Amino acid sequence: MYSFLNDYSEGAHPLVMDALLETNKVQSVGYGMDEYCRKAGDAIYKRIGTLAPDIHFLVGGTQTNMTFISHCLKDYQAVIACDAGHINVHETGAVEATGHKILTREHQYGKVTVEMIEDIVKCQVDEHMVEPKMVYISQTTEWGTYYTLSELEDIYACCQENDLYLFMDGARLGSALVLEGAPTMKQIAQNVDAFYIGGTKMGALFGEALVICNDDLKEGFRYQLKNKGAMLAKGRLLGVQFYELLKDNLYEEIGLFENKMADKLRTALKEKYPLYLPSTTNQIFVDLPNNDLKEIEKEFMVTHMNTLDKSHTRIRLVTSWATDEKQVDKFIELINNI
Amino acid sequence: MYSFLNDYSEGAHPLVMDALLETNKVQSVGYGMDEYCRKAGDAIYKRIGTLAPDIHFLVGGTQTNMTFISHCLKDYQAVIACDAGHINVHETGAVEATGHKILTREHQYGKVTVEMIEDIVKCQVDEHMVEPKMVYISQTTEWGTYYTLSELEDIYACCQENDLYLFMDGARLGSALVLEGAPTMKQIAQNVDAFYIGGTKMGALFGEALVICNDDLKEGFRYQLKNKGAMLAKGRLLGVQFYELLKDNLYEEIGLFENKMADKLRTALKEKYPLYLPSTTNQIFVDLPNNDLKEIEKEFMVTHMNTLDKSHTRIRLVTSWATDEKQVDKFIELINNI
Amino acid sequence: MYSFLNDYSEGAHPLVMDALLETNKVQSVGYGMDEYCRKAGDAIYKRIGTLAPDIHFLVGGTQTNMTFISHCLKDYQAVIACDAGHINVHETGAVEATGHKILTREHQYGKVTVEMIEDIVKCQVDEHMVEPKMVYISQTTEWGTYYTLSELEDIYACCQENDLYLFMDGARLGSALVLEGAPTMKQIAQNVDAFYIGGTKMGALFGEALVICNDDLKEGFRYQLKNKGAMLAKGRLLGVQFYELLKDNLYEEIGLFENKMADKLRTALKEKYPLYLPSTTNQIFVDLPNNDLKEIEKEFMVTHMNTLDKSHTRIRLVTSWATDEKQVDKFIELINNI
Amino acid sequence: MYSFLNDYSEGAHPLVMDALLETNKVQSVGYGMDEYCRKAGDAIYKRIGTLAPDIHFLVGGTQTNMTFISHCLKDYQAVIACDAGHINVHETGAVEATGHKILTREHQYGKVTVEMIEDIVKCQVDEHMVEPKMVYISQTTEWGTYYTLSELEDIYACCQENDLYLFMDGARLGSALVLEGAPTMKQIAQNVDAFYIGGTKMGALFGEALVICNDDLKEGFRYQLKNKGAMLAKGRLLGVQFYELLKDNLYEEIGLFENKMADKLRTALKEKYPLYLPSTTNQIFVDLPNNDLKEIEKEFMVTHMNTLDKSHTRIRLVTSWATDEKQVDKFIELINNI
Repeated sequence: MYSFLNDYSEGAHPLVMDALLETNKVQSVGYGMDEYCRKAGDAIYKRIGTLAPDIHFLVGGTQTNMTFISHCLKDYQAVIACDAGHINVHETGAVEATGHKILTREHQYGKVTVEMIEDIVKCQVDEHMVEPKMVYISQTTEWGTYYTLSELEDIYACCQENDLYLFMDGARLGSALVLEGAPTMKQIAQNVDAFYIGGTKMGALFGEALVICNDDLKEGFRYQLKNKGAMLAKGRLLGVQFYELLKDNLYEEIGLFENKMADKLRTALKEKYPLYLPSTTNQIFVDLPNNDLKEIEKEFMVTHMNTLDKSHTRIRLVTSWATDEKQVDKFIELINNI
Repeated sequence: MYSFLNDYSEGAHPLVMDALLETNKVQSVGYGMDEYCRKAGDAIYKRIGTLAPDIHFLVGGTQTNMTFISHCLKDYQAVIACDAGHINVHETGAVEATGHKILTREHQYGKVTVEMIEDIVKCQVDEHMVEPKMVYISQTTEWGTYYTLSELEDIYACCQENDLYLFMDGARLGSALVLEGAPTMKQIAQNVDAFYIGGTKMGALFGEALVICNDDLKEGFRYQLKNKGAMLAKGRLLGVQFYELLKDNLYEEIGLFENKMADKLRTALKEKYPLYLPSTTNQIFVDLPNNDLKEIEKEFMVTHMNTLDKSHTRIRLVTSWATDEKQVDKFIELINNI
Repeated sequence: MYSFLNDYSEGAHPLVMDALLETNKVQSVGYGMDEYCRKAGDAIYKRIGTLAPDIHFLVGGTQTNMTFISHCLKDYQAVIACDAGHINVHETGAVEATGHKILTREHQYGKVTVEMIEDIVKCQVDEHMVEPKMVYISQTTEWGTYYTLSELEDIYACCQENDLYLFMDGARLGSALVLEGAPTMKQIAQNVDAFYIGGTKMGALFGEALVICNDDLKEGFRYQLKNKGAMLAKGRLLGVQFYELLKDNLYEEIGLFENKMADKLRTALKEKYPLYLPSTTNQIFVDLPNNDLKEIEKEFMVTHMNTLDKSHTRIRLVTSWATDEKQVDKFIELINNI
Repeated sequence: MYSFLNDYSEGAHPLVMDALLETNKVQSVGYGMDEYCRKAGDAIYKRIGTLAPDIHFLVGGTQTNMTFISHCLKDYQAVIACDAGHINVHETGAVEATGHKILTREHQYGKVTVEMIEDIVKCQVDEHMVEPKMVYISQTTEWGTYYTLSELEDIYACCQENDLYLFMDGARLGSALVLEGAPTMKQIAQNVDAFYIGGTKMGALFGEALVICNDDLKEGFRYQLKNKGAMLAKGRLLGVQFYELLKDNLYEEIGLFENKMADKLRTALKEKYPLYLPSTTNQIFVDLPNNDLKEIEKEFMVTHMNTLDKSHTRIRLVTSWATDEKQVDKFIELINNI
């Protein structure tokens, strides 16, 4: 059985593993104050340009979201997301566990829109309702789509007008960075208050690099990290991995490769089946007759998203740095023969 | 400069790194539901014997403490610790951040005592005060001492009498396991409601294995993990490492080695300086004239604990699986020549 | 200007004030352990019959909701409500502030339905999502409708089937108790796990009487009260008021009176304007041309609910024990002359 | 049986009850936005002088403490108190329930001292420990003592030097205001960041008036009130009561009367028994032989504080606006005849 379940089924990209091995015996201070974290931070600075963001390395996505969102909001403030947002559905209430409501509207192609934000802001009339203070978006989205630079600029303008922070979850950022019209890392940094560069789903063993661009949100974040159990003792492990991913173009190369693998699957699938929100990223959503799905699942693992009707199911396939092209070809052959 | 600052200055034990490398390309399901975690769990079962504990793998110690303590306590319940307890001092209020008070008394040789527990329980008279419901101890303690089997049994008996859970933080468990009179892992499991087997400070890249012995505390813990941002996507990384540490005796061998290195340092130090709470574990606390400290710090990094007076400082030295015996010898030579 | 803004614009019903005055100089123990609270509890027992619920008196509705909901749920559990639910909209995130997510669907005539609950339960598939554990309903609802006995029974059956607690917010319970088909207090107690009898909006100065019917939810609630700042020092004030309201039929008489006043307004309004979800309780929702609204607001205060379009607004009028019938007549005359 | 248990055994001062009665039928807007709250606020402004504090009225002391402390602190910040502090002992972890640690040292005559604060600040060295950010004191203290103006000034200077907020819990403020050397309300306002004027223990049915002096702490507090379930629907009840207490000198008269009653008891008691921390406020702590205590408790209710030894107990007597001087005389006669 070969798995297209997700992009974290294997360990780390071989170059990342090499870097961990090479540095394994070197002594360093703990908790992210080491040379490797400094170098990884420098690599990020270099990509971002003139800004001077605060950079922190965390272990996982849910952890990063809950730690940073709770850092930015006062007790009575809320975060805006679309209903499909990772924080709203798939984090077991981690944001609410830190005391904050998530205000949602139905996603539009997987995304938050300016209209959505404005509608939520308009609904908040007095102190008997939570105050929206942050907008959370994901690049790429939960449904495999992505924000163009122009969309991001519009959302950021709307946020600034309404005194809202904009926070981008970049768990799968690499897949978007290499796509047409998508903002570069530098452009992202100029159009959000903070974002994170995902590692776990982009070839690292684990890790997310949080980049805080807005000066107002920087103070005391290392305390916040520890307070939420999110400060890794051997912080160097995060520095080493992100330095390897970001010093040259490994991060983008991984994005290109996984998108290419996904494109191959997509091209074949759409000949036979309707795609849902046809993405160009490393996630594919496709609606299958259950009989065909049964055939596929004799050899491949895929994620069931929704039951569409008695005889159809929406599934997800995900590619990654580790995707085996031979298995992709085998999958294509299989569906062509169904 | 060689560092005796702590036991997490390097990466992982070479055998642990080998295991991570070997399994790197294998696909597995996420979030700790994989084969490696199952095997690591089996290795723990095997050591513990007839019990059937729930086993969960987390990334770090503070995370494990806050996630598990908040899992066990109702809103109005508190955890008992000694004033030196890691949760009380060095976790930036992570337990309180989950809503719970820590009730403390002054440590006795770094430890919690039966008298301490009974005194705290007696002070709680009605619903205007928090209800103590758990006792937190560390093996080894923050001051390098450890609980004997007999001490542990007494504390557990006291806990059961007073309807308190007993939770042992085993961040440095390996150092204690190999010492005379200390409880074995099996004896620990029989005398606590839960404990964790530390990995971060015992040769893993990171990770702590939480062992829940009390059936009442098992329900829903995977939800709790996710709710607190403590569920690792590539959970297999934890399984692989703990399997390597625990399948044979690597965990104990690391404990023996670090204690032996500490013994060498201790023997030399106590010739010249007073030791504080003379431990037999991998942490050494010693009171030095500041002039001597200055000499030492030309070549070695050590942790400053307290300023004792204008001219004396209490410092800490820690050994680990990675301690270089040549550096130990060099340190001994240096202090002998001061 | 006369206010139809809400049912808490005045102090307390004269009989309640009398009772407070009469008992003012009597000494009693604090925190709800007094004779008056016992007598009020007995009055509630008497209405409910064979059950032996735990009864606690709190000061306000939001406080009661957040204190009790957080008492019942584990960290990772959520409460189901309709989107219009008071806890979801008008409590400034008080439930989320205690750590819990609210799962919603669009209200049906102001209500939660069995279909809604089942759909939410079905969507929850694993530990990456919060576990729904409670259903929150209001009698009467935010939109002035009410649950019939039959509807309540269906919802409770659905809750029991799905291992969910059912909690009824009875801020305006008196208005429903006297309506056809509505459950009696005894029937409510048999068909929920807990409910509260509202005082603030039903003639008391303040106060809500929480009735916990499910034995599993009783333990430790006085600790929870104090932990959430919800234990009133002079708890007797709550006992005195609820005893006065519930010892005979004052509570129901208030319900009847406010409904009657609302009926008068309703009858007149519906001749000229469309009512929204035509209720029979003490809240009236009506859609007005803005010009007419302007006329009304020269003499009366009403609540603006929604802007319907450029020239129409949905407003709310509320009656209470204190509503002045002469003002009702004057209002009717006014709209008849517009 | 006559009770000296506390200062909230009766309802409200007759003048307060009169004011509530007189205004009972008047309509007002809800949630503290009414005329009565405005007038009560003006009465406080008038006493405080040139400052322009934000004033909010809450129902109880624990509620005020937890709502305001959590308003001021970031997730990782802590509040300093002495070990006897009300928030540390008698609020069932309400402050921790909002996520914040309380850092304590042993009280000195019931008080926090500059040395205590400096010691706690000095112990905090890095982000692995909570950041102390507020000092909590009570006027009068839990042990019946009070801060002089000079002591308060010193503590405030220390707070400002260390970037700490100073918050004074004035649950029994009236008893201190009329004592020699104690700060006036105006002097308090000049030497704290916020304080509250207690009503519950000073003749109101309930209520505490929070006065926020520091501009940085004012923003969004009405949201915080609602978020913590602390916004009273009929907020006018608080305005009416505090206006009555503070418009002239009723508040101080109550303080004078209760102190005078306490002085009578104190004078008699100290002839026969050792007083603990001999206070001049309305709380008396005295160490009694158990046999004598038994005699007293045939006719009077008192609070047991500590068991001193097998045959001695420390008890507390409290006087209030409602204390019956005949009962005071009867008590004195009784102890004189033991």
